[in-house]
Amino acid sequence: MADFHIGFDLGGTKMLAGVVGPDYQVLSKTKRKSQSQAGPEAVYEDIVATLKDALTQAGKTTKDIGAVGMSVPGILDRKKGTVVRTPNLGFYDFPLADRLKAEFGFPVVLENDVNAGTWGEFVAGAARGHEHILGVFPGTGIGGGLILNGRLYAGVGGNAGEIGHMILQVEGPLCGCGNRGCVEALASRTAMGKDAIGLIANGTLTGAYAENGADLKAISSKFFSQGLKEGNPHIIAIIDRAADLLGTHIGGCLNLLNPELVLIGGGLVEKLGDYYLKRVEKAMRASAWEFVAADAVVKAAILGDDAGLIGAADLACKAVEA
Amino acid sequence: MADFHIGFDLGGTKMLAGVVGPDYQVLSKTKRKSQSQAGPEAVYEDIVATLKDALTQAGKTTKDIGAVGMSVPGILDRKKGTVVRTPNLGFYDFPLADRLKAEFGFPVVLENDVNAGTWGEFVAGAARGHEHILGVFPGTGIGGGLILNGRLYAGVGGNAGEIGHMILQVEGPLCGCGNRGCVEALASRTAMGKDAIGLIANGTLTGAYAENGADLKAISSKFFSQGLKEGNPHIIAIIDRAADLLGTHIGGCLNLLNPELVLIGGGLVEKLGDYYLKRVEKAMRASAWEFVAADAVVKAAILGDDAGLIGAADLACKAVEA
Repeated sequence: MADFHIGFDLGGTKMLAGVVGPDYQVLSKTKRKSQSQAGPEAVYEDIVATLKDALTQAGKTTKDIGAVGMSVPGILDRKKGTVVRTPNLGFYDFPLADRLKAEFGFPVVLENDVNAGTWGEFVAGAARGHEHILGVFPGTGIGGGLILNGRLYAGVGGNAGEIGHMILQVEGPLCGCGNRGCVEALASRTAMGKDAIGLIANGTLTGAYAENGADLKAISSKFFSQGLKEGNPHIIAIIDRAADLLGTHIGGCLNLLNPELVLIGGGLVEKLGDYYLKRVEKAMRASAWEFVAADAVVKAAILGDDAGLIGAADLACKAVEA
Repeated sequence: MADFHIGFDLGGTKMLAGVVGPDYQVLSKTKRKSQSQAGPEAVYEDIVATLKDALTQAGKTTKDIGAVGMSVPGILDRKKGTVVRTPNLGFYDFPLADRLKAEFGFPVVLENDVNAGTWGEFVAGAARGHEHILGVFPGTGIGGGLILNGRLYAGVGGNAGEIGHMILQVEGPLCGCGNRGCVEALASRTAMGKDAIGLIANGTLTGAYAENGADLKAISSKFFSQGLKEGNPHIIAIIDRAADLLGTHIGGCLNLLNPELVLIGGGLVEKLGDYYLKRVEKAMRASAWEFVAADAVVKAAILGDDAGLIGAADLACKAVEA
């Protein structure tokens, strides 16, 4: 049984690979831009090159590697090892696991990116020692991961965890998924960015805040952390509302799942820190049953990018050993 | 190991006890009104008498009984065997399991009523053969039960499943729990009854529909099934909206849990039948991700009152054997 595994985080903007050793050390970390516009074959070639770099950088060969875990943002068929759909990367029914296995020889296991990140925090990060965990990752969208009874819970089809696509406001704002009023359409950084763009358009936000005009993609988590730091009341109001709505929804999920830990990760909490986290927690406690809320602590994720690498590598390791 | 167990369904309006044999036959069924106003000691005495009746009616003695499972609508401390809070029965920190054990000698296990009902349908009813089940019971309130990986999922504190107390409409109507916009406040029979009362008050609903005036408790599931049968457009509109909102919310829960079965039970589906069920299912499929919805079937519960008896008895049996 090999002691080393590779975790691969295939994101919409960048891809990241790392050799992960026993006790979850990340021995190498290599990175490339994801050229999503170039088509699936070009993305695939970059994946291969990034994997080779990760091996070289760690001084390992394919024979040292037990398995590769691919963390993928999209809909997967885990049994077949195919990427059914990834809107951001252009993969449709792409046999990623088989292609990589033919190329390198090691087994390849696909996992949803948020599940991999939650699992990484569970085995090596902020969620260690808890058995019932609701992972929530607000950023461009709002992803979720569930660990129940100490095991990743993925549902019958492997696609559980989509906490962002539950409706919190009937007939609310349009969501990327086509529904109206999803949590993601109300509380993600994208939703916050739309509010900010409205305030730029009507002249409420000016100066450095307005320099990118109406480019939603330019409104990053840093845009909001800057506003928070400078005490801009308009930006703080946007942050507060998004945090309140996310917390309200997490409170409802507490009533459904009665977890012991709510793990919050992703760009918003990394940049907005305790201010954001405490606001989310306060709304969560106001919305959940008191005795259910009392069972749960709230923690920020601590591993950053490494969570996905470690989680994907470890889940692949366990899948291969099972 | 005893072959017989007792299931006890302690409801807000009635209590029901039955001796359950191997293969989940209900050998006796005895019933009493729950005299909630008379205080916990009076309710307790009635529980004891109802248990004795169930034994007598089945021709059994306490020695034949492996364990008693109590299905209780409220907040429980299962480890201590106490009823922490049941608003409808007046129990507060009541040591129900210990009291009954001292009285009869057999082990007593407490379980949430909706969990017990879902479990009963899982072992002996409509949910047999499924491993990942979301149970939804719309009635006076909206309860939920989760079976994940073939096991009852109750969370860290034993109180998971409260699907009715998740917010579906920020700042929506006031819920009995104190929040606004809970699913229960929008789609329960109580919520439907409030709509009907508004229409009685303004003269839209008249005749037999209006004979109880503004008495919310008199508006039963039968009130709505009558309106459906007679084609009353106002009552049908109330049913449709409640079914649509419940389905929308279940769709969100599908995205979170990716179950293979949605089991719908309780008074509304018993009285409104396929019309209601199909309407809930349609809204559910419109709200969930397509591939997640495709994993799930929707079924009506089939055991009625027996579900709670069988479920509580079987969970007690398994708890004692574990």
